[in-house]
Amino acid sequence: MSSQADKQAILSTIEGPQDLAKLSLPQLELLAGEMRDVLCNLVACRSAHFASNLGVVELCIALHDTFDFLHDRLIWDTGHQIYPHKLLTGRYAEFGTMRTKGGLMGYPNPVESDYDLFMTGHAGASVSTALGLASGDDLLRRDESRHSVAVIGDGAFPSGVVFEALNNARRQSEKLLVILNDNQMSICPPVGGVADYLDRLRINPMYTGLKDEVAKILSRVPLLGDPTERFLVQIKEAAKAGLSGGMIFEDMGLRYVGPIDGHNIGLLRKYLQMVKKIEGPVLLHVVTEKGHGFKPATEDPVLFHAPPQFERDEDEIVAMKKSSSRAYTHVASDAIAQQMRTNERVTVMTAAMCQGNKLEGVREEFPARFFDTGICEAHTVAFAAGQAKVGMRPVVDIYSTFLQRAYDHIFQEVALQNLPVTFMLDRGGLAGPDGPTHHGVFDFGYLRVFPNLVVMAPGDAKDLPAMLDFALQHDSPCAIRYPKASAVELERPPAPLELGRSEVLSWGTDGCLVACGALLPRCVEVASKLTEEGLDVGVINARFLKPLDTETILKAIRECGFVITVEEAALAGGFGSAVLEAAAEAGLDSSGVRRLGIPDHYVEHGERDELLADLQLDVEGIAAKCRKLAARAPAI
Amino acid sequence: MSSQADKQAILSTIEGPQDLAKLSLPQLELLAGEMRDVLCNLVACRSAHFASNLGVVELCIALHDTFDFLHDRLIWDTGHQIYPHKLLTGRYAEFGTMRTKGGLMGYPNPVESDYDLFMTGHAGASVSTALGLASGDDLLRRDESRHSVAVIGDGAFPSGVVFEALNNARRQSEKLLVILNDNQMSICPPVGGVADYLDRLRINPMYTGLKDEVAKILSRVPLLGDPTERFLVQIKEAAKAGLSGGMIFEDMGLRYVGPIDGHNIGLLRKYLQMVKKIEGPVLLHVVTEKGHGFKPATEDPVLFHAPPQFERDEDEIVAMKKSSSRAYTHVASDAIAQQMRTNERVTVMTAAMCQGNKLEGVREEFPARFFDTGICEAHTVAFAAGQAKVGMRPVVDIYSTFLQRAYDHIFQEVALQNLPVTFMLDRGGLAGPDGPTHHGVFDFGYLRVFPNLVVMAPGDAKDLPAMLDFALQHDSPCAIRYPKASAVELERPPAPLELGRSEVLSWGTDGCLVACGALLPRCVEVASKLTEEGLDVGVINARFLKPLDTETILKAIRECGFVITVEEAALAGGFGSAVLEAAAEAGLDSSGVRRLGIPDHYVEHGERDELLADLQLDVEGIAAKCRKLAARAPAI
Repeated sequence: MSSQADKQAILSTIEGPQDLAKLSLPQLELLAGEMRDVLCNLVACRSAHFASNLGVVELCIALHDTFDFLHDRLIWDTGHQIYPHKLLTGRYAEFGTMRTKGGLMGYPNPVESDYDLFMTGHAGASVSTALGLASGDDLLRRDESRHSVAVIGDGAFPSGVVFEALNNARRQSEKLLVILNDNQMSICPPVGGVADYLDRLRINPMYTGLKDEVAKILSRVPLLGDPTERFLVQIKEAAKAGLSGGMIFEDMGLRYVGPIDGHNIGLLRKYLQMVKKIEGPVLLHVVTEKGHGFKPATEDPVLFHAPPQFERDEDEIVAMKKSSSRAYTHVASDAIAQQMRTNERVTVMTAAMCQGNKLEGVREEFPARFFDTGICEAHTVAFAAGQAKVGMRPVVDIYSTFLQRAYDHIFQEVALQNLPVTFMLDRGGLAGPDGPTHHGVFDFGYLRVFPNLVVMAPGDAKDLPAMLDFALQHDSPCAIRYPKASAVELERPPAPLELGRSEVLSWGTDGCLVACGALLPRCVEVASKLTEEGLDVGVINARFLKPLDTETILKAIRECGFVITVEEAALAGGFGSAVLEAAAEAGLDSSGVRRLGIPDHYVEHGERDELLADLQLDVEGIAAKCRKLAARAPAI
Repeated sequence: MSSQADKQAILSTIEGPQDLAKLSLPQLELLAGEMRDVLCNLVACRSAHFASNLGVVELCIALHDTFDFLHDRLIWDTGHQIYPHKLLTGRYAEFGTMRTKGGLMGYPNPVESDYDLFMTGHAGASVSTALGLASGDDLLRRDESRHSVAVIGDGAFPSGVVFEALNNARRQSEKLLVILNDNQMSICPPVGGVADYLDRLRINPMYTGLKDEVAKILSRVPLLGDPTERFLVQIKEAAKAGLSGGMIFEDMGLRYVGPIDGHNIGLLRKYLQMVKKIEGPVLLHVVTEKGHGFKPATEDPVLFHAPPQFERDEDEIVAMKKSSSRAYTHVASDAIAQQMRTNERVTVMTAAMCQGNKLEGVREEFPARFFDTGICEAHTVAFAAGQAKVGMRPVVDIYSTFLQRAYDHIFQEVALQNLPVTFMLDRGGLAGPDGPTHHGVFDFGYLRVFPNLVVMAPGDAKDLPAMLDFALQHDSPCAIRYPKASAVELERPPAPLELGRSEVLSWGTDGCLVACGALLPRCVEVASKLTEEGLDVGVINARFLKPLDTETILKAIRECGFVITVEEAALAGGFGSAVLEAAAEAGLDSSGVRRLGIPDHYVEHGERDELLADLQLDVEGIAAKCRKLAARAPAI
């Protein structure tokens, strides 16, 4: 980073937000440029969140210049736009370690800094937590004046919990500032009534809801916007409409101020100073541009949300790295498309993750049967249940960890009704550099408690389309869970998929590995390695977490020297736990059963393979466990 | 019911909604009176939902008279107001069996009738499911004109998933009718910005958002309201404001119509006919009175939400049954009050369940530290996390099954941050007559997957205050889970509560019962009964589901002839499963371990003790299991 430091003459001197006070407005603007440069350099060498971070540089500077967030409280909703905040709060020197194991997290992390209050990654909770912070301060520190600020993007904004928080805001604290960071984008283009409403707010003068004070300030502030023409026109319109709109928020009990240009540091500081003085909860509507300051990103903010590595020459992309490997996500979206081609009852739903789930092709080919609900997982699942009830076959394609947001609807609207909704749980397992908020390791445990629900995990890429095919024929709800990983194919003619049947790849006299999910290929590798060492270890592809193939698995417990269950899921209540339950039910001695999986702590960020190795879930770790069990004294 | 039939001359002839067409408007009004009479008679002899059912009688008649819900689709949100619907859809003769085992459910039940589409009980999903039904019909039956109707109370309305659905409505179907049943009440008085907004809608003319057609119809309809003076005044104001308001809904893309008098069948029919013709999603705002037609209920709708049994003489309550037993809920609310008296950092949160959780006293004594967030569990948990972060000790008091709505926030905002939020899970176990939607049996499984979270279950009433005390001293999140049951106290000086320590009540050479939760006293009874039969069976009060007291429990597995785990929770991933995990970890032979709990199917409604007996979780069932295990051949 040292050679870069010359190029970041101002940024390299910023040890913390307190240093911003020494800078003039033009220097702050230079600082913004330097920060953008750091962001571009980082993303050129590593996959990371990008466009959203470019969009909040000025807002971040203005916030830290106006508030003291060791005293006041700041929550960045979701948290993927935290990079500028990290640059300003003493983490410039470590910035190159971003998203690497042991390095900075790509999300807020209280362990890194007192300026990061909550480790987040899921969208929408910022208003609630900020309100809780304010309410706690009201109760404990009534004599101090502390402000609580939530910055939330328009993508996260339609999430139900935001509405719940806004609805409760006025009576729960007087010191809440919600900044709506309106970049007219979720990860994918926005959908729904609120998005349309924000469009109108940005453009149409409707209603004068602001006090004279605000009007006066607004009239005095010259509009210094972004040079991009499209954006400039929009901001001018927005400023003209600045005295209007916001009824929907005022109706809910918040003061609405805006919209204002989110790339004008001077303007932002003035508004922030002003809203600090308003009594009661305030919503400040800030218009920013995703990817601002880097032309390729403003032109394609979807691609540049979290782009692949690229080479650039100033504002031009010279080359972009293409991923050579095919991931489970691709296999899943191809399988969905294939099903939709042959069965017109199949629909697909995503909660703003069209890009992450690689569903762009499906959206294009089947626009009428593709539903992007925005970041509204709860609604998505209940909506799918309604479709299923009248005869459709909805596929709900949501990351494992985000599906937690719809937990009660999986229960009430789907499993309890026994409706044939198919859940595709992408990112099931360790999600890699995104870290603890994104690892999808609790799904085995949280899903298998529900009667009626079938839960499957493909052992390799060939299993996945077969499982989807099975699910869409089956008259009960099904979940298919697969990792963020390359889609390995085992060389074998896969056994046909049958409800509650595992696939025996090989039988072993010394022991048996029973894998539920995509760690299967490495179990095959372990077995082959151990054969060379004279150990005869079989491998079973469990395929079904529920219903479990008790017949085969209990046979293995009875006949093989040991049984090791292998899963990329929390051990508490997971696959191995289900195996032990079945053994106990049958009165079997399971002292020769061991479980490998995710232990009872949150797993940090890093490359999936690095993390798996740390957890002894690599080939060497699994093999070592086999050797140890094979060597133990036989059970009495 | 036969002697009643004379009094229900019209109702007794109604075999289905099709019979309504034969009736004149005055006859329909008489029918409404007869239906109210049936409701009063039922509730006089049984605890059931009451005031909300009285409130929707006319709306229910008008809906079934206007639509054909074997063709069109109808969802009653939450479902506790389903009784009039059941009376009109062929279930009058069975009405006396309501909420008894094997009888009618107190909620919609597809098994009972094709007119019940979803079995529900949790609030807020109706708009999403109705939208899904409409969307499915759009795709499969585009040539047929089917309407999809969701009736939702203003109590459920602020739930985040409703907002998510409204936000998606316009683009997901054209055939959605949302009826906002505004009785100005949740179970407890309403809270929040939306409630205030509805207040204003009901009173202030603001904005003309309706088409001429609507205006004309409205001007032609004479206002025939309820005689109650308070209500009449309100309705007249509402009707005057009828051409106004609703901007918030119009802004989200729905046509807003109303508010109109929800007790005027003629008016309701005219409006329903009219909104049927409107293209695109419509929100019809209907004002009703909770408890309408029964004076004691209109005067105290909170008490009469689900009142105890009472004797009445026409419109007068002569006597009301007082519950003699003290329930776990009372023990919990007393313990919370006690903690709040001595520790000013303790706050308490309920999601509209102030009455159900018996928190009225706490609300009165500590208004500043009592938070009723409305039916917004997700917000509640995230809000509590914010308070905890700045040093408060929030207690989140939510029914086990409803806490599912906040699952992702338990994960991200609380457990991942390791914040000391205390969850009180009331109705953990079989909730009795409310049935499958209310049984809180999945919590053991869904909670114990999360690192950092301590999960406790009191073995008797004495354990509960000690657990709360422990939780409020402990620096990590804790959950305390207890049933809807009488608070039995075991006669013993309870052992002090220590993290991860069970309490050994007695040690047994033949076997040992390890109970996690309130089935403990019956395990003591079983042991005592078996002693008389010559079997020496010990009893352990597990207290902690997580962290588990592995030392004591594994000792029992090693030393006692058999170990039976006993829990009022789903066996999949539950307490017994955790015990098996610990045994496997230690390489123990657990072939002598058996698990008693809730099997893998949804448990119907009925009295808790009836249901437990069916599941062999009564004294006889547990004793039989002990005898069977004691008699088996000793393990080799």
